[in-house]
Amino acid sequence: MSSGTKRNDPERRQRIIDATLDVVAEHGVTGTTHRRIAAVAAVPLGSVTYYFATLEDLITAAFLQLAEQSSKEFANRMALASDRDSAKAAIVAIIAGSIWATPRTLLLSYELYAFAARHPPVAAVMRQWMSNSRMALERFFDPLTARALDALVEGIGIHNSIDTEPLGEAAIRTIVDRVTDKNANSEHN
Amino acid sequence: MSSGTKRNDPERRQRIIDATLDVVAEHGVTGTTHRRIAAVAAVPLGSVTYYFATLEDLITAAFLQLAEQSSKEFANRMALASDRDSAKAAIVAIIAGSIWATPRTLLLSYELYAFAARHPPVAAVMRQWMSNSRMALERFFDPLTARALDALVEGIGIHNSIDTEPLGEAAIRTIVDRVTDKNANSEHN
Repeated sequence: MSSGTKRNDPERRQRIIDATLDVVAEHGVTGTTHRRIAAVAAVPLGSVTYYFATLEDLITAAFLQLAEQSSKEFANRMALASDRDSAKAAIVAIIAGSIWATPRTLLLSYELYAFAARHPPVAAVMRQWMSNSRMALERFFDPLTARALDALVEGIGIHNSIDTEPLGEAAIRTIVDRVTDKNANSEHN
Repeated sequence: MSSGTKRNDPERRQRIIDATLDVVAEHGVTGTTHRRIAAVAAVPLGSVTYYFATLEDLITAAFLQLAEQSSKEFANRMALASDRDSAKAAIVAIIAGSIWATPRTLLLSYELYAFAARHPPVAAVMRQWMSNSRMALERFFDPLTARALDALVEGIGIHNSIDTEPLGEAAIRTIVDRVTDKNANSEHN
């Protein structure tokens, strides 16, 4: 393969993106360098700068891939639901099973959130991710309920990951039932 | 002041901790060094290593201070509530007013979460923070409801910080009403 062909090798571009997520997971965004990425991807340093003009472009592309893959998994799970009840069961399973909240995805999410806080344009990646989750939820729930559920997936996911006694399926079911109950009101208490 | 006295100067120790949070906010945990902290605190490098044996000890102490201050603010707000209804209003105000979710506290929280993911003993700081929030909530709500509310403060706080249309007070009120409604059940839908 000629050097010219190699330079437009989509497999190599992909390997650089994958390596970037590995480097971010290990060293954090602020410890991520072209050099470290090239080493993990096993490509020459010049190859990294060829595909991505700046480190910010590359890290953003890597986070976009993370968001798209996670959104796809979430949507696939929700796609198995056929009605509101099975949709609620799917959400409970997603939260209780830490489907989103795997240790790696959580750590990379924290890095993404911090990166977006420091580089406001990157918040677009977070917004796209949220928007995808909400669209998957809005097949079964009104927009407000979808946003509440999305916030619970996030909040319980983070808390359960470090809690000595994470919320179990029954407890999560109770919370999801409440949040999806449109007849709830403050009078009931 | 003699050099010996200076070495046990609590004000200096405090300045080092405050500087650490500033450095973490700017450079991330993985970009935080003794040198940067000493520069921001305006103390000699040796002073930083005198008070804190390792960088991990120092960063952990700084996050502990962040957690304690945030917990105290949260508890103070909840302390103004006298019953379940005013407690719900306080929670709505906390979420809608981004009391926890100031840009700086959010960014430092993401750094803390990522740090804890890489250094499991640091998760104790997160647990202490969660436990304080829940205790403040349990004055008015059962433990499960308190945990659900705590997850909502976290999840909505993160999402609202980047949403183009953050959830407003009325929407948050609706969600808080649902989560605190023990009579909710899946039959209502």
